[in-house]
Amino acid sequence: MQGIWLENKRLSLSQNLPIPKPKTEEALVRVLKAGICNTDLELLRGYYPYQGVLGHEFVGIVEEGPSIFKNQRVVGEINASCGVCEFCRRGLKTHCFERTVLGIVNHHGAFAQYLTLPIENLHLVPQNVDTETATFTEPIAAALEIQEQINITSAEKVLVVGDGKLGQLVAQTLFLTGCDLVVIGRHQDKLNLLNTLGIKTHVGETIPERTFDVAVECTGNPVGFDLARRSLRPRGTLVLKSTYAGKLTLDASALVVDEITVIGSRCGPFAKALDLLAQDKIKVKPMISAHYPLSEGLRAFDKAQTRGTLKVLLDISSELM
Amino acid sequence: MQGIWLENKRLSLSQNLPIPKPKTEEALVRVLKAGICNTDLELLRGYYPYQGVLGHEFVGIVEEGPSIFKNQRVVGEINASCGVCEFCRRGLKTHCFERTVLGIVNHHGAFAQYLTLPIENLHLVPQNVDTETATFTEPIAAALEIQEQINITSAEKVLVVGDGKLGQLVAQTLFLTGCDLVVIGRHQDKLNLLNTLGIKTHVGETIPERTFDVAVECTGNPVGFDLARRSLRPRGTLVLKSTYAGKLTLDASALVVDEITVIGSRCGPFAKALDLLAQDKIKVKPMISAHYPLSEGLRAFDKAQTRGTLKVLLDISSELM
Repeated sequence: MQGIWLENKRLSLSQNLPIPKPKTEEALVRVLKAGICNTDLELLRGYYPYQGVLGHEFVGIVEEGPSIFKNQRVVGEINASCGVCEFCRRGLKTHCFERTVLGIVNHHGAFAQYLTLPIENLHLVPQNVDTETATFTEPIAAALEIQEQINITSAEKVLVVGDGKLGQLVAQTLFLTGCDLVVIGRHQDKLNLLNTLGIKTHVGETIPERTFDVAVECTGNPVGFDLARRSLRPRGTLVLKSTYAGKLTLDASALVVDEITVIGSRCGPFAKALDLLAQDKIKVKPMISAHYPLSEGLRAFDKAQTRGTLKVLLDISSELM
Repeated sequence: MQGIWLENKRLSLSQNLPIPKPKTEEALVRVLKAGICNTDLELLRGYYPYQGVLGHEFVGIVEEGPSIFKNQRVVGEINASCGVCEFCRRGLKTHCFERTVLGIVNHHGAFAQYLTLPIENLHLVPQNVDTETATFTEPIAAALEIQEQINITSAEKVLVVGDGKLGQLVAQTLFLTGCDLVVIGRHQDKLNLLNTLGIKTHVGETIPERTFDVAVECTGNPVGFDLARRSLRPRGTLVLKSTYAGKLTLDASALVVDEITVIGSRCGPFAKALDLLAQDKIKVKPMISAHYPLSEGLRAFDKAQTRGTLKVLLDISSELM
């Protein structure tokens, strides 16, 4: 099969990859569409020494699996857990010590014609959610993880730092809480997308300091972290959403003096993400910058790394075959 | 009066400081004893651009103030708040935007014969707590702040990183929760003090990784932070207790992937600290490395900066005059 292969920080389009064989309790999924995420770009920069097929945001059709899923459109949670370690037993499967992660850790990913995942990771895509829209399920779930970790209500003043793919979805999910939300970013055109939804935005790098209850860092760079930290009132909460290569240098004393809480936040609830999509509460179409067929996957990566680009989708196979 | 003056990262022993005049709602306190804290040493290194009399850990006798305190031994909370700002109104006086801080921010400190503090900051020292012991009230309160922020029970595995003054008190206060506690440090003699109390210790820089629920960083250096972070299980909590000059460089992605919570922690509850001292539940005497009269205050600072030293006390005036 065809697929986009990462090895030693280099991508290649491979034509002769073996179709993966599902293990016990796994399904074989034919990939329809997949989305390029910043984590893919960070993997390319060496964030984690992964070798294999990239990609973890996808919609596919189950070709081998239980009848409930057979020939149905699915999305899939990306952490494949062992089921027996301490964290699996605690119900924290995304933190399984032995986990593989689709297209990230030791598990071939979604930028190929086929993938395998544990059956328990699969979720049916609601009929009224089109395939293009459903490719956003994984990053929307990641955005929703924030609300699994901290309680955000209409009483909170919340700042989202970053107007990229992740910042857009974080902002949209937080906006649904009714909180007093502001998004700060560098790109007026991206911020305009949020304005059309009624979300307040601010272009530039200045924001009222010591004001917000919660700040969500979605840029993955130290400037964004610093801006988020300075925006917080004492005892505020800074949510780190970005995984990125490289180190972060910060003023730890400022965190101590203001008793700031910093929370790392990763994968989230797929069912809730699909529910929001089915209710049309998250607008993803304006975020799609380009489509490429898998055969032009390397060009798709070039596009995804171009300034101003939001989501790039790979069209991998057709729903009707 | 005599006092230790900090200016441009230099200490001097001044003989002719004016005795501070208490403002409305303030008391005049004759200082009996005071303790040198790592924050004093960090101020000397430029952690914060303070100019004035240093010192914030003290016991004194009220010479001017309301009758309940007059001629009584007191300790004092170090943040003098405005009472009217948003944070004061929320009851978070230690985070008052307009606060001065004894010997740290815009308020002359305790390494002098007299100091002033708001009356509301004062606490009577219980009769059965001697003056030497009571000088530890402020750092014990700071250690107890951890338990104000997170719930620590006998179910938790807790690591304290650092065997210095702060680490010792953090360890002793956490030990009272019944948690499964280990203290890691570089000094066998300091760790031995904890062993005599029944606290488990480990000398060196290796510890089981991804094991602890909570790690408290009490070293103020990046090695300590890294060790604390690596010791934590996914979704664990890292408490930052040290204020220090300089920046901290860290692997932010590791915090995101493991969804670690980092909490800055500063000043804590004086009443609870005094209560523990009155019940003889915290052993501070073995932590006293040396006493100096105020007239030898500069030597006291040299001693406090010598490797292996724990608490250095300044004997400033006598209880009976």
